[in-house]
Amino acid sequence: MSKSPTGNFFEHFYLGQVFHHATPRTISDGDSALYIALTGARHVLSSADTVAHAMGYQRRVVDDLLAFHIALGKTVPDISINAVANLGYAQVKFLRPIYAGDTLSSKSTVIGLKQNSDGKSGVVYVQCEAMNQNHQVVMTWIRWVMVRKQDQQLPAPATVIPELSKVVNVNDLSIASEVSYQLFDTQITGSDFVWDDYQVDEQIHHPSGMTIDESDHTLATKLYQNPARLHFDASLSTYQKRLVFGGHIISVARALSYEGLENALSIAAINGGSHCNPTFAGDTIYAHSQVLDKWQIPHRQDVGALRLRLLAVKNQRLDDVAQALQEQDGKRVYQANVVLDLDYTVLMPRKSN
Amino acid sequence: MSKSPTGNFFEHFYLGQVFHHATPRTISDGDSALYIALTGARHVLSSADTVAHAMGYQRRVVDDLLAFHIALGKTVPDISINAVANLGYAQVKFLRPIYAGDTLSSKSTVIGLKQNSDGKSGVVYVQCEAMNQNHQVVMTWIRWVMVRKQDQQLPAPATVIPELSKVVNVNDLSIASEVSYQLFDTQITGSDFVWDDYQVDEQIHHPSGMTIDESDHTLATKLYQNPARLHFDASLSTYQKRLVFGGHIISVARALSYEGLENALSIAAINGGSHCNPTFAGDTIYAHSQVLDKWQIPHRQDVGALRLRLLAVKNQRLDDVAQALQEQDGKRVYQANVVLDLDYTVLMPRKSN
Amino acid sequence: MSKSPTGNFFEHFYLGQVFHHATPRTISDGDSALYIALTGARHVLSSADTVAHAMGYQRRVVDDLLAFHIALGKTVPDISINAVANLGYAQVKFLRPIYAGDTLSSKSTVIGLKQNSDGKSGVVYVQCEAMNQNHQVVMTWIRWVMVRKQDQQLPAPATVIPELSKVVNVNDLSIASEVSYQLFDTQITGSDFVWDDYQVDEQIHHPSGMTIDESDHTLATKLYQNPARLHFDASLSTYQKRLVFGGHIISVARALSYEGLENALSIAAINGGSHCNPTFAGDTIYAHSQVLDKWQIPHRQDVGALRLRLLAVKNQRLDDVAQALQEQDGKRVYQANVVLDLDYTVLMPRKSN
Repeated sequence: MSKSPTGNFFEHFYLGQVFHHATPRTISDGDSALYIALTGARHVLSSADTVAHAMGYQRRVVDDLLAFHIALGKTVPDISINAVANLGYAQVKFLRPIYAGDTLSSKSTVIGLKQNSDGKSGVVYVQCEAMNQNHQVVMTWIRWVMVRKQDQQLPAPATVIPELSKVVNVNDLSIASEVSYQLFDTQITGSDFVWDDYQVDEQIHHPSGMTIDESDHTLATKLYQNPARLHFDASLSTYQKRLVFGGHIISVARALSYEGLENALSIAAINGGSHCNPTFAGDTIYAHSQVLDKWQIPHRQDVGALRLRLLAVKNQRLDDVAQALQEQDGKRVYQANVVLDLDYTVLMPRKSN
Repeated sequence: MSKSPTGNFFEHFYLGQVFHHATPRTISDGDSALYIALTGARHVLSSADTVAHAMGYQRRVVDDLLAFHIALGKTVPDISINAVANLGYAQVKFLRPIYAGDTLSSKSTVIGLKQNSDGKSGVVYVQCEAMNQNHQVVMTWIRWVMVRKQDQQLPAPATVIPELSKVVNVNDLSIASEVSYQLFDTQITGSDFVWDDYQVDEQIHHPSGMTIDESDHTLATKLYQNPARLHFDASLSTYQKRLVFGGHIISVARALSYEGLENALSIAAINGGSHCNPTFAGDTIYAHSQVLDKWQIPHRQDVGALRLRLLAVKNQRLDDVAQALQEQDGKRVYQANVVLDLDYTVLMPRKSN
Repeated sequence: MSKSPTGNFFEHFYLGQVFHHATPRTISDGDSALYIALTGARHVLSSADTVAHAMGYQRRVVDDLLAFHIALGKTVPDISINAVANLGYAQVKFLRPIYAGDTLSSKSTVIGLKQNSDGKSGVVYVQCEAMNQNHQVVMTWIRWVMVRKQDQQLPAPATVIPELSKVVNVNDLSIASEVSYQLFDTQITGSDFVWDDYQVDEQIHHPSGMTIDESDHTLATKLYQNPARLHFDASLSTYQKRLVFGGHIISVARALSYEGLENALSIAAINGGSHCNPTFAGDTIYAHSQVLDKWQIPHRQDVGALRLRLLAVKNQRLDDVAQALQEQDGKRVYQANVVLDLDYTVLMPRKSN
């Protein structure tokens, strides 16, 4: 019997199927150092033990996106190694702080299936969760991917499309009760702007850009132990180039967005997102943000939530989110340089009264 | 007196000569994170504290090859900085688990010498060992290199060629007595295939490929503190390109071989190996394995040994190990794309009865 | 109000102004592993816990330059994000050992201002210090940069140019009293040459070279959380290429200088330095040293100081420091391949009597 893993094709998935994904991963300070080197991240809760500890954390936390990329990477061999396209994320919730030394493992449950009309592939919806070594759920998310069908003669499964909320409700955000934002001093980040200062619809221009090289995107993707082959083997891509892992673009854009959102201390949720166009080595990424909404957090005076739209654009700066879309055949579509449109929610200190 | 180190030339070596190599190295979780990022390694004993601890290890172990490359790198300034070619390894034995925080140092003893007939260089055989901070030997190996002669007028030394076993005997493999493979659950790696399932002569196709970039091979070689100049300075190579360190190819091939050998949990020995052709940045590496032998381990029902052949090929996939060789002038030689032919022995859990 | 930080322009600085720079940083073993991988550093006090501990350190120390680059990187958003040129450093003093786990933050005080005659920019002199989590000063330095003026109508400030010593006096060097160099065994580094063996004016040729790639210089600069944009965004540079961060060149040259200065265990001071020409990816760096001075340390028989000149040259080897300069229009100027001329002071064990 062949020992080569072939992964799952569309016909192998069934509703309610549960995958306990392979190979747990202990996250270390080494991973965090690499994450800073690979993305340029400067968010303070992952940089400084002193600051995190003063707010009530045990010590500095593992960057939310580093943990997410590792947890997601674990799902690839079972869920998306035969994917044609990663269609989307929804309801990504960051539930507990993760510290160096924690060991993460991931689990997925199939919650939706829809065969494409041509019978060659289908969409698989999974509800995923990542657990730490104490079996505490640290993150949950929904993801859907288009997966090839191997045996096209097999009948299509019943179509089930899960109902997906477009946004994680503010009441479902998890804010560590042991953490106080009141103790946060904005001198720490050098920006005075806190939750109270941002307005709905306000646009934020992030001045820095970052050119992507082959080594840095592949090092990142290997760090996350994400074995999706398009990122490592140019011969597999229709572009004859290695495709940059979309998660790396999210991380680079989040790092670039630091300048203008310095006090967006942690990510509470990703409401949705799409990788609008591919990125390749040599492309320079710029980021632009817009405030979509702002919410008070129930029972908390010290911290508020901002719902943000984060656009990443290659080789071009945006002055306005409107420039991300263009008219084509009477439809509004992403212009060719837009590589990411992410809808996410951050936690930010509030002005003390 | 010149302070520039010139290293040893062939005439500086004598039988029985002992080198205590410079600069011990403490290995940290940072090195392990980088090793994952540089190679894409996913072997569970170096990934997850929880899994390693449950089997009896203190915590996750330093990857066998990461430790080997660091220990070998230490020998370069004394042994091979003036080498023309690295001819081979034999009898590489992994004797004790290495943990983050351990400090390794290396020692070599000259066990063979043979001047080449042209008098311009000669082969030096060394028996090496790496020790931890408690003076415990953690690895031993034999290596032979062709080294330039500086003063060709000097007489040739007596030729002594050590007798080298082609394989590390199963009785000489070291399996930590505190470690139980019975407690290993294959759900951890996602592969059901254990020692009992592999057959002698069976071939294993590893589906993934990995393109090598300049930064990742040079970062790896610097991480190992291996100062061999051909890997860093293009002007020194006959190819006018930086040569990829052979150890990086071994590591990439071992990482690629994870898909199909997920439960090859650790390396017990490297029986021999040769770097058949050079690799350069831009080359894409594919791996192919063959089971050479399988052995029961004396007094152990929980774990068995597989002797494997691991071929790494650039820019081409192999369907069969036979494709690695071709006829040339009546001889069987490696075809030009084969970059590694490694003979090594792994430990794998056995089916519980 | 715009949330995009624009940084300070020349007219925003005033004498005596104090900046508490943003975002403290905890340094970990992960940063040290990356530093080795990015630079090829092999200095033993940052490599081996055992050696450092035997000399009286708690454990291995964070490389002096890694700590300096991180501490300096913190000053960039306030001081030099609008810099036209980094003109120089002086009086860089390394005052206390830094260990993994320490959290650094930086502070700058404006000590000099001089508007350029064209009114478009001016020179800002800052006295900086880095503190650890216990509020102990671990490094101090002076730096001056040329910064653009935004509103050229504003009057020039009074010109104040601080008096800068060309060298850190031997009595101002900080040698940890708990550390004994007498216990240092040169077998550890493989070089017998200690302080007593180096002569003033002696030149040291370092045999190795290192090619710089885009990923390794950008990874290094991101690791230091230095957001200066010229290093990341090719479109901003007059060269249409990303400029290599000068600190990376200092680190690479220091690492190359290991071969011939193996026992230069730590850096006590940087007296001054200039980045004579730009470096770009693809350039190969070679290093050449000259002993400028040698000093006994008051009350210490075990350790002495060497004042060294370290030249880094791209794509060319120097046989002599004199080759760094050439005649041009009757003046002695750096030839085009010289990228660094650094004057610094190291600590080296002395012969035991």
